[in-house]
Amino acid sequence: MSVVDLARFMDDLATESGQAILPFFRAHFGLDDKARGGAAFDPVTEADRAAEVVLRNMIRQTFPTHGILGEEFGSERLDAECVWVLDPIDGTRAFIAGLPTWGTLIGLTKGGVAVRGMMHQPFLGERFVGDGASSRLRTARGERTLRTRRCDVLADAILATTDPRLFVEGEERDRFQAVEGCVRMARYGTDCYAYCMLAAGQIDLVVEAGLKPYDIVALIPIVEGAGGIVTAWDGGPATQGGRIVAAGDPRLHKAVLEHLNP
Amino acid sequence: MSVVDLARFMDDLATESGQAILPFFRAHFGLDDKARGGAAFDPVTEADRAAEVVLRNMIRQTFPTHGILGEEFGSERLDAECVWVLDPIDGTRAFIAGLPTWGTLIGLTKGGVAVRGMMHQPFLGERFVGDGASSRLRTARGERTLRTRRCDVLADAILATTDPRLFVEGEERDRFQAVEGCVRMARYGTDCYAYCMLAAGQIDLVVEAGLKPYDIVALIPIVEGAGGIVTAWDGGPATQGGRIVAAGDPRLHKAVLEHLNP
Repeated sequence: MSVVDLARFMDDLATESGQAILPFFRAHFGLDDKARGGAAFDPVTEADRAAEVVLRNMIRQTFPTHGILGEEFGSERLDAECVWVLDPIDGTRAFIAGLPTWGTLIGLTKGGVAVRGMMHQPFLGERFVGDGASSRLRTARGERTLRTRRCDVLADAILATTDPRLFVEGEERDRFQAVEGCVRMARYGTDCYAYCMLAAGQIDLVVEAGLKPYDIVALIPIVEGAGGIVTAWDGGPATQGGRIVAAGDPRLHKAVLEHLNP
Repeated sequence: MSVVDLARFMDDLATESGQAILPFFRAHFGLDDKARGGAAFDPVTEADRAAEVVLRNMIRQTFPTHGILGEEFGSERLDAECVWVLDPIDGTRAFIAGLPTWGTLIGLTKGGVAVRGMMHQPFLGERFVGDGASSRLRTARGERTLRTRRCDVLADAILATTDPRLFVEGEERDRFQAVEGCVRMARYGTDCYAYCMLAAGQIDLVVEAGLKPYDIVALIPIVEGAGGIVTAWDGGPATQGGRIVAAGDPRLHKAVLEHLNP
């Protein structure tokens, strides 16, 4: 499949999964309790599973030899050269709370390296795409190139993290707090948008822990394509998840690694 | 001015302030550093001030006897019967980070009571409006009535707060953490959206501290119109800001006050 076709296929994945998810987002608005269908109805799980079924079926049909690693239905053919890494709803807390800062993550690894990524926010109609060499935001209003911004010292940096409670109490939390204590501003509750806003030059630094591969793989080519760096805290590859640090400016990345590995 | 005209006037306030703000949101996307205009350019402050000038001018022209309390330009005629309470950009951290979860807050008090409120998110095109008796969400796709949901025990509640660092270390933070320790789920980084999602029945509880009157006045009629309760931690009126607690279910509000006032 050509490069153009691959981009179009990923667009189709986003369109179809978005259509599967959207009916569940804020599904309860203005309904009384009886109309909510009882406690057994869990919109985010329903949406997550419906979207992953759609994504898996499309991938199996188009690329039967590719592997798939997904949040909801586990893994298949992980020894394949090309493996799709899927998180239908990254930011389930945001989704549950009705906040539009969740996203669908669609990543592709080749030989273990993240080569393509998309973050799709269907409620907003925002698609962040990257291939490690360039990154773009596409909306109904048009397309913009994404570039990280210069920021070489922690004192100037805007830091984002999804939740400070992600860090295990003790050494891990201490290291995060050491970084947080040095930055200009910290913002919580960001999920996948943190990495996309870093790619867009709005945020300088993301520090997280406890991530799964499907939380980060799709975001790597977006961050790298915009000029940023994303690694594990020890400087190794980010593709396995765990403790992750992303910076828009390579000099900032170097500086923060020193704080995270004292 | 009739009720209908007042609603239309508030809509005009939202439209005009939104047009003043939007050019500054994510203004830096894809620009290189030179094009950013140097360190002196602070988009959120520019947007905040531009919008508040627009709002104040419209109010002065239409209601010359009304008072105005705004975040950026202070107060005028606070002894008037009707006072507008304005926060052009509630959620400045979200705005700076490029996240679309900030909002423009337009509130109206009469004899010190919050009687009308709007939260406008111009990037998303969402307008949450309330008059204490009913509340609605209006978008380009249509209009929905907002109703809080039933949730009478903390163990079932979804809690939102803008930032756990809002709470002063010591007794204030301890009380918040006592509540946080009892709930089903807590979400950070919510700003004005927390109260609107509470009105929509997506969130059950908001606990905050250190708020200004302009952070909360516009949200009171939206929460109350949807069936919720918003007060100070001591159960008194929320209009002065400070320590604020909002609940979708009056029984939950009663339960949480016991935790906040041990």
